[in-house]
Amino acid sequence: MAQLIADKRDIDFVLYEQMDCESLLSYPEFEEFNKKMFDMVVKEARKFSLKEILPTYAEGDREGVVFENGNVKVPKCFHKLYEMYTEGEWLALVEDPEFGGQGLPHLIAQAAFEYIVGSNYTFAMYGILAKGAGKMVELFGTDQQKELFLKNIYTGVWGSTMLLTEPEAGSDLGALTTTAIKNDDGTYSLKGSKIFISNGEQDITDNIVHPVLARIEGAPEGTKGISIFIVPKIWVNEDGSFGDHNNIVCTGVEEKMGLHASPTCSMSLGDKGMCRGLLLGEENKGMEIMFHMMNDVRLEVGLQAMTHASSAYLYALEYAKERKQGRELGSREQSQVTILGHPDVRRMMIDMKAYVDGMRSFIYYTASCIDNAHCTKNEDEKVRFSGMVELLTPIVKTYCSEKGFDVCVNAMQVFGGYGYTKEYPVEQILRDCKITSIYEGSNGIQAMDFLGRKLGLNKGVVFTEFINEINSTINKAMEIDDLKDLAVKLSGTVTKLSETIVNLGKTAGSKDFKTGFFFAHPMLMATGDVIMAWMHLWRAVVAIPAIEKVTKSKYSDIDPANFLKNKNFAFYDGQIKTAEYFITTMLPVTEGKLKSIDASNDSALKIGENAFAS
Amino acid sequence: MAQLIADKRDIDFVLYEQMDCESLLSYPEFEEFNKKMFDMVVKEARKFSLKEILPTYAEGDREGVVFENGNVKVPKCFHKLYEMYTEGEWLALVEDPEFGGQGLPHLIAQAAFEYIVGSNYTFAMYGILAKGAGKMVELFGTDQQKELFLKNIYTGVWGSTMLLTEPEAGSDLGALTTTAIKNDDGTYSLKGSKIFISNGEQDITDNIVHPVLARIEGAPEGTKGISIFIVPKIWVNEDGSFGDHNNIVCTGVEEKMGLHASPTCSMSLGDKGMCRGLLLGEENKGMEIMFHMMNDVRLEVGLQAMTHASSAYLYALEYAKERKQGRELGSREQSQVTILGHPDVRRMMIDMKAYVDGMRSFIYYTASCIDNAHCTKNEDEKVRFSGMVELLTPIVKTYCSEKGFDVCVNAMQVFGGYGYTKEYPVEQILRDCKITSIYEGSNGIQAMDFLGRKLGLNKGVVFTEFINEINSTINKAMEIDDLKDLAVKLSGTVTKLSETIVNLGKTAGSKDFKTGFFFAHPMLMATGDVIMAWMHLWRAVVAIPAIEKVTKSKYSDIDPANFLKNKNFAFYDGQIKTAEYFITTMLPVTEGKLKSIDASNDSALKIGENAFAS
Repeated sequence: MAQLIADKRDIDFVLYEQMDCESLLSYPEFEEFNKKMFDMVVKEARKFSLKEILPTYAEGDREGVVFENGNVKVPKCFHKLYEMYTEGEWLALVEDPEFGGQGLPHLIAQAAFEYIVGSNYTFAMYGILAKGAGKMVELFGTDQQKELFLKNIYTGVWGSTMLLTEPEAGSDLGALTTTAIKNDDGTYSLKGSKIFISNGEQDITDNIVHPVLARIEGAPEGTKGISIFIVPKIWVNEDGSFGDHNNIVCTGVEEKMGLHASPTCSMSLGDKGMCRGLLLGEENKGMEIMFHMMNDVRLEVGLQAMTHASSAYLYALEYAKERKQGRELGSREQSQVTILGHPDVRRMMIDMKAYVDGMRSFIYYTASCIDNAHCTKNEDEKVRFSGMVELLTPIVKTYCSEKGFDVCVNAMQVFGGYGYTKEYPVEQILRDCKITSIYEGSNGIQAMDFLGRKLGLNKGVVFTEFINEINSTINKAMEIDDLKDLAVKLSGTVTKLSETIVNLGKTAGSKDFKTGFFFAHPMLMATGDVIMAWMHLWRAVVAIPAIEKVTKSKYSDIDPANFLKNKNFAFYDGQIKTAEYFITTMLPVTEGKLKSIDASNDSALKIGENAFAS
Repeated sequence: MAQLIADKRDIDFVLYEQMDCESLLSYPEFEEFNKKMFDMVVKEARKFSLKEILPTYAEGDREGVVFENGNVKVPKCFHKLYEMYTEGEWLALVEDPEFGGQGLPHLIAQAAFEYIVGSNYTFAMYGILAKGAGKMVELFGTDQQKELFLKNIYTGVWGSTMLLTEPEAGSDLGALTTTAIKNDDGTYSLKGSKIFISNGEQDITDNIVHPVLARIEGAPEGTKGISIFIVPKIWVNEDGSFGDHNNIVCTGVEEKMGLHASPTCSMSLGDKGMCRGLLLGEENKGMEIMFHMMNDVRLEVGLQAMTHASSAYLYALEYAKERKQGRELGSREQSQVTILGHPDVRRMMIDMKAYVDGMRSFIYYTASCIDNAHCTKNEDEKVRFSGMVELLTPIVKTYCSEKGFDVCVNAMQVFGGYGYTKEYPVEQILRDCKITSIYEGSNGIQAMDFLGRKLGLNKGVVFTEFINEINSTINKAMEIDDLKDLAVKLSGTVTKLSETIVNLGKTAGSKDFKTGFFFAHPMLMATGDVIMAWMHLWRAVVAIPAIEKVTKSKYSDIDPANFLKNKNFAFYDGQIKTAEYFITTMLPVTEGKLKSIDASNDSALKIGENAFAS
C-alpha cells in the first residue's frame, strides 16, 4: 500500500463517477478551472500531506504543547511545516480569491482536506480555524475590517480562533457573561473568561485574531443579547501596523485524551488591562453571524471523523493483509494465513469499508450541494440545495463523528494487542477522533436541531425532497437487473423511515414532546444509516455499467471470482458487494431501530432522578 | 453521592434479592459463613477500595511505570498500598484457605472485586494475576510445587504473570516457538521471547512466578506440543530459600493507550544465561492446563469492563445531576436546569444504567453458576451449572467488554468537553477499559468459541437449558399483571433467538461454514442483548412484590410519580422502568440483528482482497 490516509481510487470515483464533479465547471464561478486543475490540487494536497504533514503526526502527539507564563509552545516540527502550509496556500481552498482564497468548489476541497486533515488534524487545525473566522469577517465585516484582517486570516499569516464557551455557558451559549463596553473611539472593551479555546495561544503566528462572543452592557438576556467582536491578540492600527498587545491572556491549557498537539486554552479577557475589540456586524446579532459559518464547521467535523476512520481502516487493512495467524477455517493446511482470511476479521473490515466509503460519498454529496446552492442562478434550485445542506449538516456532524469513531475502535480490534500500543498509529487516531462527537455543538444538540428545526424546514418540503433524491437513485437501481433486489429492500426501509419520522415529528409537537426529543438522536442515526445505504446503492448504480465496460459482458453473466485479479474490476465489484452487504446485513438493524422509535416508550422519562443510583 | 465506583444498593439487590446469595450458605463449603460475614467482606472491600485504592487511580496513570536496564519501577504510591492489599488478604477471595485463600463464594467475590477493580484496575492487577497462576499450580502442581509456591502466590508475597504470547503467536498460540530442554535434575531450560506480559517485571514483590508456555524438544507441532512451566524470577530451592536469579529479563515495556500503571513487558528467557523452569502437570498438556483458569480469567475481564462502565456511569450521573445548562424543554422558565432533565441526556443515562445493571446481574449470575457447579453434590446439577458457565463465559467476556466500553463513551459524551479532559476521570476510564475487548482471547476468538463449541455443548442440551432458564423467568413475569406485556415481548424475541441460533449453527456446520462464522460475533452480541432483557425482567419480577410491600398497594393501582421521594420505592420502580425501557426500546433492535443474521449474506466473503482498497 502506497499510503495510508485515504484511498485515492475511491476519492476519484466519488468525485468524478458518483458526484459528477465536472458538472460544476459549467458555473461561471469555476469556469477558470478544468478537471486537470482539480486533479492537480488533489494530487498536490496528497503529496504535501503524505510527505510533510504525516511524519509530524506521532511526534506532535508525543511532544504536545508547553504552557508557561501565558505562552504556549507548539511542537517544534510544526513551525517550518506551517510556513510550507501557508506558502502552499492550503488554508482557504474554497474562499474568495480576492481575499487570498483559492475559489475552488467545496467538493474538491473535501478531497484535498481528506489528506491534509487525515495526515495530522492537530496541525491542520492551525489553519482550518481561519475558515470560520474569515467567513464571518467576509460576510459581516466593514470594508476596513476586511482590509485589515481578511487576507491575513485566509492566508494564515495570522492565526484564528473562536471564543464561544465559558465555564457556565457551554451548550447553553445564552448564559454567557463576557461583557463589552463601548469606548469613545467606537471600539469595545471586553472583560470575561472563555474556555476550551482551540489554539487560543500559540507561537506559530505573529498575531491571532479572536472572534469573541460577548454581551454589550444593557443587552437583552439570553442569546438575543449576544454580539460578536474581533479581538486581535496584538492591536492592528488603521494603517495595518501593529499597536499594543491586547490584554487577552492564556491562563491554562487542558490536558486531554487526544489532540495533544493543539492547545485547548482558557482565556482571560481584560482582567489585567485593556482588551479592545471591534464589533462585527450589528449589535446583538452575534449568534446569527456565528451560525453563518456553522454549516461549514460541522461539515468539517464530519470530514475530520471520516478521515480518521479512513486512515484507521487503511492501517488495519494493511495489517490484516500482512499479519499471519492461524490456519484457514475448515482447511487441513498447516500453514498460517493472513488474518484478512478469517471471517471475523473480514466482518470488521467490510464494516469499516462500508462506513468509510459511505461517509465519504455522504460528505462529498453534501459539499456538492453547498457548491450548487452557491452557484446556481435558478432560485428554486438554490432553495432546494440550501435546504438539503441545512438538513444534512447535523447528520454529517453526528453520524460521521460516531460511526467514524466506531471504525477506529474496530481498527484497533483488528490489530489485537498491538492496536492498544503506540507502536501503531491507531490508538492515537482513536483518541484524536473522539472529540468530534463532542465539540462544535455536541451530538445531542445536533439531534435536537435535526428533529426540532430541520425536519420541518419549509413545512417539510426539504425532507420530502431529500426522500425524493433517495428514490431517484432507487429508481435507477430498479432498472438494473442485478440491483433490483437491493433497490426494493432500500425502498421498503425508506418508506418506513418516512413514516417513523412523520410520527416522531408529531410526537415532538404534541404534549409528549419530551418523548419525541428522547428519540431525536436515534432518529438521526437511523436516517444516517439509510443515507449510507443510499450512497452504496448509488455507488453500485455507477459500478454496474463500469464493470460491464471492463468485462464486455452483463454483470449477471459472469462469475466475479474470475475477474478479481483485474484491479479495476475488483474495485467496481467491491462497490456492488459492499452495497449488498450494507443493505442486506445492516438495514435490518436500522428497521429494528425504527420500530424502537415507533414504540416511543417513555419509561426513561418517568423514572425518578433518585432511581438512577442510590 | 457518597462514592462513585458501584451502587451499593444495587449490589445488595443483586446478591440477596435477585441471586439469593444466602442459599449458598447451605453448602458445606460455605457453612462457616453467614450473611453478616458476606456483608462484612463487601463492606470492607468497599471501604478499603474507596479510601486507599481509588486515590491512586489518576496518580498511577500520570506517573506510569519506568523501565531502566531491565528493571521496572511501578508508581510510588503503589508500594505501601500493595502491602495493605496483601495484609488485608484481598487477593484470593475464592481460593482454598489451605493455601492462603478466603474460601468465599464467587458471587460474593464479584461484589468485593467490583470495588477493588473499579477503584484502580492497574493496581488490583498486581494481585489478580495470582488467581490464574495459583489455580494452575493448585490443580496440577506436585505437592512440592504447591508447598514451594502456592501460598506465596495466593497471598501476593510473590507476584504472578502468564507468559503466553510471542511476536508471531498471539491468537494463534500453536505457533509459539519458546523451547524447553530437559536437564538432568528434572528441571527444564527455557529459551525464547514473550511479549505483552502484564507485570512481567516490577519492583513491588521480591519474587515473581512466571507460568510459561513452551515447546519441549521433539514435541508435536501446534497446540498439542505445548507444555507449561513454572519459571520463578529468582530460583526457589527445595527448602524454600532463594537460589540464583533466573535469566528471565524484561527487554522493554509497551507504551499504550491506557493501563499506564501496569507494565506490559517484553520478556527474554535464557538469552544470556540459564533460565530454569519446573514442568507443571504432564508434558504437552500446557493448553489444557491453561484453559482450566480461562473461565475465571474471562469472567474477571467481563467484571473489569462492567466496573469501569459502572464508575463512568456514576460519574456521569453525578455530573448530570449537578451541571446546569439550558432551560427545561417546553418551559417558559428562564432558569437553567440540570442536564439530567434534558431528554437526550436522559437517553444516555438510562442506556448506561440499563447496561451497567444488566451486566452486573449477568456477571453475578454466572458467578453463582460457578459456585453451584463447584458445590452441588447432585451430578445432573453439576453438569447443568458447569455447562451454563461454559456457555456464558465467552458472552460475559465479549458482551461486557464491548457494552462496557460503549457506556464509557456515553459517559464522556454526557460530560461534553470536560469529559475529554483529564480534569474528570472518564477519559482515563475509557482508555483503560478499551483493553478488555482485546486481551485474554480477543472477542473474535470468543465468538468462534461461542458458535463453534459452546452452542453445541452436550449436543445442544446446554443451550436448551439456557433458554429454559430464561423462560422460567418469563413464566414468573407472565403471572404478574404489570409485567405480562414485557414477558410476552421477551418471549417472542427468545423464540426468534433460538431459531436464528439453530439456523446459524447449521450454516456453520455446512459447506458455507465461513458465512456461519462471519456472523458468530453478531450472534453472540444478540444473545447478550437477550440476556440483558432477561436480567431486567428478572429484576422487575423481584421488584414488583417488593414495591407492593413498600406501598401496601398493587403496583397497577398507584401512580408511581407520587412515591418517587421514597428512595426504596424509587429504586424498585427504577427496576421496572428500566426493564420496560430495555425490552421496549432495545429489543426491537436486537430483533433486527437476528433478521440480519438470518439473511446470512455472504457478499463480504466474496469480495476480492484487492477490492478493500486500491
